[in-house]
Amino acid sequence: MKLQVSRRQRATPYTPRVEALGVSGFSVVNHTILPKGFGRPLVEDYWHLKNHVQLWDVGCQRQVELRGPDAARLTQLMTPRDLRQAQAGQCLYAPIIDENSGMLNDPVILKLADDHFWLSISDSDLLLWAKGLAFGMGLDVAVDEPDVWPLAVQGPKSDDLVARVFGERVRDIRFFRFERCDFEGHPLVVARSGFSKQGGFEIYVDDFALGTAVWDALWQAGEGLEIAVGGPNLIERIEGGLLSYGNEMTRQNNPLECGLAQYCQLDGSLDTIGMQALTAIAQQGHAREIRGLIFDGDPCPACQYPWPLSSAGQRVGCVTSAIWSPRFEQNVALAMLERDCWHAGTAVSVACSDGSMRSGIVTDLPMEVE
Amino acid sequence: MKLQVSRRQRATPYTPRVEALGVSGFSVVNHTILPKGFGRPLVEDYWHLKNHVQLWDVGCQRQVELRGPDAARLTQLMTPRDLRQAQAGQCLYAPIIDENSGMLNDPVILKLADDHFWLSISDSDLLLWAKGLAFGMGLDVAVDEPDVWPLAVQGPKSDDLVARVFGERVRDIRFFRFERCDFEGHPLVVARSGFSKQGGFEIYVDDFALGTAVWDALWQAGEGLEIAVGGPNLIERIEGGLLSYGNEMTRQNNPLECGLAQYCQLDGSLDTIGMQALTAIAQQGHAREIRGLIFDGDPCPACQYPWPLSSAGQRVGCVTSAIWSPRFEQNVALAMLERDCWHAGTAVSVACSDGSMRSGIVTDLPMEVE
Repeated sequence: MKLQVSRRQRATPYTPRVEALGVSGFSVVNHTILPKGFGRPLVEDYWHLKNHVQLWDVGCQRQVELRGPDAARLTQLMTPRDLRQAQAGQCLYAPIIDENSGMLNDPVILKLADDHFWLSISDSDLLLWAKGLAFGMGLDVAVDEPDVWPLAVQGPKSDDLVARVFGERVRDIRFFRFERCDFEGHPLVVARSGFSKQGGFEIYVDDFALGTAVWDALWQAGEGLEIAVGGPNLIERIEGGLLSYGNEMTRQNNPLECGLAQYCQLDGSLDTIGMQALTAIAQQGHAREIRGLIFDGDPCPACQYPWPLSSAGQRVGCVTSAIWSPRFEQNVALAMLERDCWHAGTAVSVACSDGSMRSGIVTDLPMEVE
Repeated sequence: MKLQVSRRQRATPYTPRVEALGVSGFSVVNHTILPKGFGRPLVEDYWHLKNHVQLWDVGCQRQVELRGPDAARLTQLMTPRDLRQAQAGQCLYAPIIDENSGMLNDPVILKLADDHFWLSISDSDLLLWAKGLAFGMGLDVAVDEPDVWPLAVQGPKSDDLVARVFGERVRDIRFFRFERCDFEGHPLVVARSGFSKQGGFEIYVDDFALGTAVWDALWQAGEGLEIAVGGPNLIERIEGGLLSYGNEMTRQNNPLECGLAQYCQLDGSLDTIGMQALTAIAQQGHAREIRGLIFDGDPCPACQYPWPLSSAGQRVGCVTSAIWSPRFEQNVALAMLERDCWHAGTAVSVACSDGSMRSGIVTDLPMEVE
């Protein structure tokens, strides 16, 4: 099926470049195009990502900017992650929950200053939740979407590439930290982060008009590094246990089910919406949790609806994302599993959407090759 | 570009049917697939829609359900349209605005009961705005997305088709009214409404599992009526002056700019968020407004970015949606025009994204063939 282009499905500053490079597959995230395929088999993209360096148009990772005297308070109201010790220059992956502790988003929060945050969001209009809370609670905070268009550099040669454009100092940026690095007189936020497990950076280009110049500088600097254009890779994402909001989890799931207990401060010291509901779930013990799954048979189709998982005739969960893995030479998946079956090594049956029943084994995340 | 299928870009109950019928083009609306093309030229779809009857999968028109003692209050807080006299059984097109009177959505509100509303939304997560306000203001209202999947029947033969399935009484449903009509024991909301100017109905199927049965009943009843599968048609939409949130307007626009003054009660009697900002704009006079535009030259490309409009060397607005019209044998567009140039008959120049400059004439909406 072809995308019908319109203003509503927003282009990014990098769209002309990815079009020139032959983009063939995409998603829509936050009303913005996310390029994901370039006419090569996904397996080729996968090995390239694990061995070289890729440039990704992730402009769809829109920012929700909170700024003002109540910015820190509103941010903490939205997440059970303890932000009290967070420092400017830090990136913090954080579940965002509603009053029932249902997941609304799972952004990376960039703390720019004590009264200034960017929430780099996954696929939901978190801006509207933040604006509704701010208005309804009478908070003194400006909530807006700034003119910021992330560009990702991912893969083992990322340090070499980004150092060529932004200077050697980027090598010293620690994981999930950012610094402002000069690009032709513009100080840009450069963070060591990204939606793969292969290492790399995200560059927060804060001016649409500057986008192609940053893209071109990185692309040209990639000569000799076997740079390629790419995008989030489903095989690598599943093996690495990276979750995708709307796929692995929805508002029907709480952060404990999503395996995000480490980002939940439940000691009663935080003023967070949904904390009461979340604490109650924690005390009772959550009923299901996300795990990896390896299953047999031919390369599986794309997972458009959750596929039922069963054990001894009982429904025990569902697959939410799945694909053939060249590394495991089996299918790999992310799945939501009931408590009795969430331990690594448990055998389950997968009712695949092509009508086949497959044999699967639960794994921890990220998946490890033995 | 091909869509990469996943759970996040939700299928509807009708997806298996539109796939079997050869869907070839689509949009993504509210994290849900909207089928828009079926391998035929859009012009063919256009004439068919104007002469026969089409079945559209508009499951992407998700509902925001407000239910409870404060449901009416919250609904009125969100829109400047006066809902005080609204009756159960009524559909009400309504701008939804934020505290600055910026457009957040333009749903059709279905009043099911005095304490029960569905907002049938365009493309933004209005659920999060409503939830944020309800929580922040401490309102006694449940806000949720119900299991409702609209299916549209559009075109001049819609009455004949829908009467065959839901009974002759549907012919008496007035424009923008709905009734509950029986389908195999299920009372379904059937509204005389839809995203075309060719007449028709929207059926609010309130059970995913029932979807294919309703689709099949309508499809089979269409024998002899030249029924076809279709979707919102850009040519017909532009000529008819139907606005699309995200295309013609964003949060940067107020309802007066969108030509929605008739849906704004500005006498100070409503308790609506953003009313103060909206009233101030109205007193000053809004600076721009949406109009039609007819312009010359070859069939234009799709409008992915707003195209600048100029007059006597001055920037006077932008095109937001455009396409070739077989009826006018020229290109037609929706455009946001500055006050000095918004009168029908004004000549402007269009800077098209293919690099060409075209001559255009401003029109009223809907566009009339002379």
